[in-house]
Amino acid sequence: MPGDPPVFDESFRAALRDLVAWRRDVRRFTAAPVPRELIASLVELASLSPSVGFSQPWRFVLVESQHCRDAVRQSFERANAEALAAYDGERRALYARLKLEGLDVAPVQLAVFADEGAETGRELGMRSMPEALHYSVVGAIQTLWLAARAHGLGLGWVSIIEPEIVARALSVPADWRLIAYLCIGWPQEEHTDPELERHGWEERLAADKLISVR
Amino acid sequence: MPGDPPVFDESFRAALRDLVAWRRDVRRFTAAPVPRELIASLVELASLSPSVGFSQPWRFVLVESQHCRDAVRQSFERANAEALAAYDGERRALYARLKLEGLDVAPVQLAVFADEGAETGRELGMRSMPEALHYSVVGAIQTLWLAARAHGLGLGWVSIIEPEIVARALSVPADWRLIAYLCIGWPQEEHTDPELERHGWEERLAADKLISVR
Repeated sequence: MPGDPPVFDESFRAALRDLVAWRRDVRRFTAAPVPRELIASLVELASLSPSVGFSQPWRFVLVESQHCRDAVRQSFERANAEALAAYDGERRALYARLKLEGLDVAPVQLAVFADEGAETGRELGMRSMPEALHYSVVGAIQTLWLAARAHGLGLGWVSIIEPEIVARALSVPADWRLIAYLCIGWPQEEHTDPELERHGWEERLAADKLISVR
Repeated sequence: MPGDPPVFDESFRAALRDLVAWRRDVRRFTAAPVPRELIASLVELASLSPSVGFSQPWRFVLVESQHCRDAVRQSFERANAEALAAYDGERRALYARLKLEGLDVAPVQLAVFADEGAETGRELGMRSMPEALHYSVVGAIQTLWLAARAHGLGLGWVSIIEPEIVARALSVPADWRLIAYLCIGWPQEEHTDPELERHGWEERLAADKLISVR
């Protein structure tokens, strides 16, 4: 992609701020299908994300078979029951009321792995911070998330899940590590506030308290 | 931020694709200063990124003192010498020729941590995937990276560094874990191809090879 660098103006930046502000972790999807080409185009864009040593360690697995989806669903049920049991009193009751995933309805389910066995990148930057390999995959997921939202698509990241069990259920190579399990589809509703804030689980921190100077 | 959800059109999506395609890991900066308010606005936007359990674990430290910058620079020198020593032959010569950071000239240096001691999020999603706390910080960094580029600002992620030593040098709380050390400034040049690709370190993988179906 040669050519002159694009100039981004204030109207683009304002729309980008809106995009970030209206991105949500979506758990309530309609049943409407999502074109396979749209998902492919999102993966292609996500693959332009930064990676340590230009390792490009992201591997995307579309989970379509009912057998695989059932295994993931069961993993969620186990992990969620264990999590619920660790809370007490009001917090436990609140946790039980939360909707934490959209596994039953999301038309697209995308497991994203880091290929720890790949030689791409030749370990550059990975001796001092080996975790940067995983971080590279996370950056690609955030790119995909924003690009999906720009198409009106919702995405939810399910982390209440057993990563090794899900990796085995999906029959991926042994050196692929599960970074994220994503539900994707058309959202039933739109919000600027996170569901966990709206339902009283946690409050937003003031951004100016999160920065300091040395 | 209430109101109707914004509608993102094809011209916005095309500009977003350009933004992702022209985002680079920048190591060559001009000496021109970057307004502090611009950095604050980027941090504010990044803080709208997703986080596991709405934990918002990101902590941003602007590294301004020469004393701290020198300590980081020395940590890079050590980690880089160790990395160089692990390569042989042509690969070693190539590594030695690469420019891997812009620590000497970047007007802004931003260390980004995950606060592992924070109770926000109340462990939701973190029992099954505790690493999701770190991943949340990485997502915020990717948001910041794209937003910076939309202002014409370049960002470089230095991972050839000793995370614990840098954390100590910056006197952050003991339960803050270094996720990234970022150099930020106005880039000297613009490219669509990564520097590591341009200089023959690694080639780009075909995106359609990175997706499979189960």
